[in-house]
Amino acid sequence: MWSSVSGCRSEMTSRTIALTVSYDGAAFAGFARQPGRRTVQGELEAALAIILRAPVATTGAGRTDAGVHALGQVVSFAAPETSAPEGRSLLRSLNALTGPDVVVTGVRLASPAFDARHSAVGREYRYRIVPGPVPPLFCARTAWWVDASLDLVAMREAARYLIGEHDFRSFCVAGSAKGKRTYRRIDVIDIAPTRELGEHCLVIRVVGNAFLHSMVRIIVGSLVEVGRGLHDPSWMGEALVACDRAAAGVTAPAHGLTLWYVEYPDEYWL
Amino acid sequence: MWSSVSGCRSEMTSRTIALTVSYDGAAFAGFARQPGRRTVQGELEAALAIILRAPVATTGAGRTDAGVHALGQVVSFAAPETSAPEGRSLLRSLNALTGPDVVVTGVRLASPAFDARHSAVGREYRYRIVPGPVPPLFCARTAWWVDASLDLVAMREAARYLIGEHDFRSFCVAGSAKGKRTYRRIDVIDIAPTRELGEHCLVIRVVGNAFLHSMVRIIVGSLVEVGRGLHDPSWMGEALVACDRAAAGVTAPAHGLTLWYVEYPDEYWL
Repeated sequence: MWSSVSGCRSEMTSRTIALTVSYDGAAFAGFARQPGRRTVQGELEAALAIILRAPVATTGAGRTDAGVHALGQVVSFAAPETSAPEGRSLLRSLNALTGPDVVVTGVRLASPAFDARHSAVGREYRYRIVPGPVPPLFCARTAWWVDASLDLVAMREAARYLIGEHDFRSFCVAGSAKGKRTYRRIDVIDIAPTRELGEHCLVIRVVGNAFLHSMVRIIVGSLVEVGRGLHDPSWMGEALVACDRAAAGVTAPAHGLTLWYVEYPDEYWL
Repeated sequence: MWSSVSGCRSEMTSRTIALTVSYDGAAFAGFARQPGRRTVQGELEAALAIILRAPVATTGAGRTDAGVHALGQVVSFAAPETSAPEGRSLLRSLNALTGPDVVVTGVRLASPAFDARHSAVGREYRYRIVPGPVPPLFCARTAWWVDASLDLVAMREAARYLIGEHDFRSFCVAGSAKGKRTYRRIDVIDIAPTRELGEHCLVIRVVGNAFLHSMVRIIVGSLVEVGRGLHDPSWMGEALVACDRAAAGVTAPAHGLTLWYVEYPDEYWL
């Protein structure tokens, strides 16, 4: 994963590094740096500044909201050539300096053109639901408890309306997309029962090129309305073409959502 | 799971009820009731006393230590015939009254001879380990982080020495078994890599008829010593025959252990 830069590139003054980062979103005001608030980016940049003895500006693949978790967030930055420690040592130093709710799980050297946000070609989110009368215990921090039985067949049928490239304005926080392009491509929505830490849950996997603000949570909230029998599956298609936030369902709570994986073309990795 | 008792048994003045209970052990001084301390049994009995409007004495299948979790603890009690609500309603009332770290997941009506502890014919514990340099995040509360790589082949070979009926005095808190019978039967020790909440971990499944005080944790601590290469697998056999706590390995931390399942003969369920 890590190899030191050879001497022939001595004209470079910095190295581009990509971190893979997990976090529990509960105690953060989201990923993106905000003055005076605890954020994942702020925490990582403070730790990097100590290790590299210089201020560091990072870029994250996804600007997750307050409460949203990540298993595979990717964060890139340029490290001064002289000060960056070797990969495993950087990983240990970062994990010693950040709180227990942020864990750096990987360190890779990337080409200078790499940018965690703009180089990404795909993103996978997973949303965890515990349906039924028994609340989750071990999954309580990472799953939405829906005290109802859900019709998976109807949910899967509804999800099919969203596959492909569409204007997802209905599935975006009202006002946040004003004057912006709201076309996105969804490749997969997969809804499967599973077990996590012994508890039965439902995992909704959503894979696409990029996502609007709260898009996955509004999709999940809408799917759950179909699953509870409040709407027919075809309602999802109507909600999509309406291009109006009011046409879609509720926003599912943040704590059920995890940014799972970010995909990049292989040529970025040195 | 639940059926109301028919009129022909009107001579009975109580009904025997078995609860299946999950809990996160972190904030409890163990399962067993202790005056002035927060225990799982104390919490359940306080909730039952409110619902049944009478003091209730319960029996648990396993007296788990402080910090140990349960997914399938079984707790039995006799409810006055007149006051016990129907199963699902009892489940909802109990979950409303206990803290979020105790969840009743099932309610069954059992025969009057049923006793959660003495009727059990098998118990399954699972111990979760996250090996390697990256600490667990989502599994941090329920897995032991071992910052080393572990030799699974050696661990599995060592585990084989423990299968069968043996005197497990070496794998029991020193002094706790004084004058007591320390023979137990282990049917299965299974060590498998898996993923929980997206994180890589190792699960050690231990199934047996009954267990001594801290027996699973001392077995796991000893297996990890073999996995790290501190001893050959055959050392486990020597530790067993020594019948001396000092011959076995360290006690693995409580928070990695979960009482997973308790087995009863089918004829107990009404």
